[in-house]
Amino acid sequence: MESITTSSYSVHFNEKAFARLKELLVVKSYSNVFVLVDENTKADCLPVFKKEMLDDISFGLIEIKSGEVHKNIESCNQVWLTLSEMDADRKSLLINLGGGVVTDLGGFVASTYKRGIDFINIPTTLLSMVDASVGGKTGVDLGSLKNQIGVINQPQMVLIVTDFLQTLDDRQMNSGFAEMLKHGLIQDAGYWNELKALKTLDHVHQYIYTSVSIKNKVVLEDPTEQHLRKILNFGHTLGHAVESYFLESSDKDTLLHGEAIIVGMILEAYLSNKLTGLPLDELQDIKTTFLNRYKKVDFTNEDIEAILSNLKFDKKNTHGNINFVLLKAIGHPVIDVKIPNELYLEAFAYYKD
Amino acid sequence: MESITTSSYSVHFNEKAFARLKELLVVKSYSNVFVLVDENTKADCLPVFKKEMLDDISFGLIEIKSGEVHKNIESCNQVWLTLSEMDADRKSLLINLGGGVVTDLGGFVASTYKRGIDFINIPTTLLSMVDASVGGKTGVDLGSLKNQIGVINQPQMVLIVTDFLQTLDDRQMNSGFAEMLKHGLIQDAGYWNELKALKTLDHVHQYIYTSVSIKNKVVLEDPTEQHLRKILNFGHTLGHAVESYFLESSDKDTLLHGEAIIVGMILEAYLSNKLTGLPLDELQDIKTTFLNRYKKVDFTNEDIEAILSNLKFDKKNTHGNINFVLLKAIGHPVIDVKIPNELYLEAFAYYKD
Repeated sequence: MESITTSSYSVHFNEKAFARLKELLVVKSYSNVFVLVDENTKADCLPVFKKEMLDDISFGLIEIKSGEVHKNIESCNQVWLTLSEMDADRKSLLINLGGGVVTDLGGFVASTYKRGIDFINIPTTLLSMVDASVGGKTGVDLGSLKNQIGVINQPQMVLIVTDFLQTLDDRQMNSGFAEMLKHGLIQDAGYWNELKALKTLDHVHQYIYTSVSIKNKVVLEDPTEQHLRKILNFGHTLGHAVESYFLESSDKDTLLHGEAIIVGMILEAYLSNKLTGLPLDELQDIKTTFLNRYKKVDFTNEDIEAILSNLKFDKKNTHGNINFVLLKAIGHPVIDVKIPNELYLEAFAYYKD
Repeated sequence: MESITTSSYSVHFNEKAFARLKELLVVKSYSNVFVLVDENTKADCLPVFKKEMLDDISFGLIEIKSGEVHKNIESCNQVWLTLSEMDADRKSLLINLGGGVVTDLGGFVASTYKRGIDFINIPTTLLSMVDASVGGKTGVDLGSLKNQIGVINQPQMVLIVTDFLQTLDDRQMNSGFAEMLKHGLIQDAGYWNELKALKTLDHVHQYIYTSVSIKNKVVLEDPTEQHLRKILNFGHTLGHAVESYFLESSDKDTLLHGEAIIVGMILEAYLSNKLTGLPLDELQDIKTTFLNRYKKVDFTNEDIEAILSNLKFDKKNTHGNINFVLLKAIGHPVIDVKIPNELYLEAFAYYKD
């Protein structure tokens, strides 16, 4: 499979991936290599990495705890200290082997250790393959507020090895699939229809390339999120507020990122129908498609109130106004839309209906 | 006084400083302005800032504790949380009003809050005026290891208001003066001689412009510290190791940064005489000049051993080798010099002699 080239690095796929990494290691002659894992990728993915790479490098292993609740500055501090104890210098390389928590956090740790060392991401979940592999967003949460602390910084290389998907359960696969469906909704109605037609996710790895290409095209046109890149936030304004709320509520089951974004996309599709002309049949198509695949989430009135108060903390808000990405049709986004207050409750009513 | 222009921003002096800030605020129309202080600058400098600016802006005040021991990720976390609680969005501005701890930490917090908001530095100590005002280094310490966590990122503007120097005691003034003397040693023998001739520091503010210009010229030629910029580290390789050791030793008085750098410069001048041809009379000139102005620090053999083991953590070291900046003559530096182990103890013996 051809590699995809971003502004400053390439995403390499499957049979080419480890070969390209080996070439880079020869060219760069790093003083030290470190691999960041969590307990899951240590058990499931590290053996594959070792089998491919152990003849070419020796490395120090650093482990963090898995899960969004550990995507915080305390985990960063632990990794910084470990790097320091292991004598990592400025010419060291950090390889992040894991899902979005590992790649986002590891990217931030590398970008800030001694004012920046090189890093490489090897996303191991469907979500991180299609979402975190391009764009250079690194960072951690602040309390329950998602990705509040971070920098934009590019890895040296991203490797997508779809064999790692075999380590995931259905719920994790569906979480990643949500972002792929979003790529269809914001850029390509044909892609949306193709994905929609999939009966199972058994062959979804064949579509990862398209999703990465769509995201890359958007990011290349607008790396600093001044205009076009905002479309990637479709479903995320309300979706992040939902996700944060479930993260901070000890009596709620945690929602995976994709599961929260599905809720956000249905809500924002409703707003799109009301404000930016998304046809009713397309709105219904979106809702039906999502609710056929994803379990409906229960929201009490108190939940909804708390979620709406989370909205104001979204990074995309400036000057106290909340800016939404909506659709005028499937495949055709509109940015910087303001929402009349009364529509939020209507949107949740539509979701619950 | 003319402003000094760096790669991406300007350093404005005295009578022009607040006027330029007012102009920037009009152009940028920030959603919110926050001012970061410590308890000292809150008492001594904030009233001046308010008097100049209160007609033009309202701002949120954020306070951290003064001193190097608070230059850590916990203080950052506190400032991030406060920004979040005060609804700081991506179009907010952070103004750092203080010494190097406030400007380094505040610059890092701004560079990482929601992946980066604008910041302005108003250094209030002689050290931060001549050292931290140019170069874009932001960050905090990791334990007792200086500036291990950070990013390179440029402020929108730096304001040098020399009236703030009236709030400093002699020890703080001398700490900043150490960096100015370094500027002479690494770039300009004439400047070294001029500064050496000063009987008191009463008129030292007249020389700040020269020091900022020297540092700016070096940084402009090599912003990412590949070659020339390394010369700014003269005295800092051993100086940082000394400073870290005193910071982590509860039974030692803390050394100010400049005081530690003075020790480092004497040690590294000795190494320069042995390895890179610094003439003996210039070595003696350096030692005499420094020890006439700065109290000699006592080192036991145990102290020296611990300081030398700190060396390996210096950010400038790669592949396990320690690279020094030495002098071949006053005003003429040499970079990337390796030191035979036996010379370290000789250098300390020369210092103590």
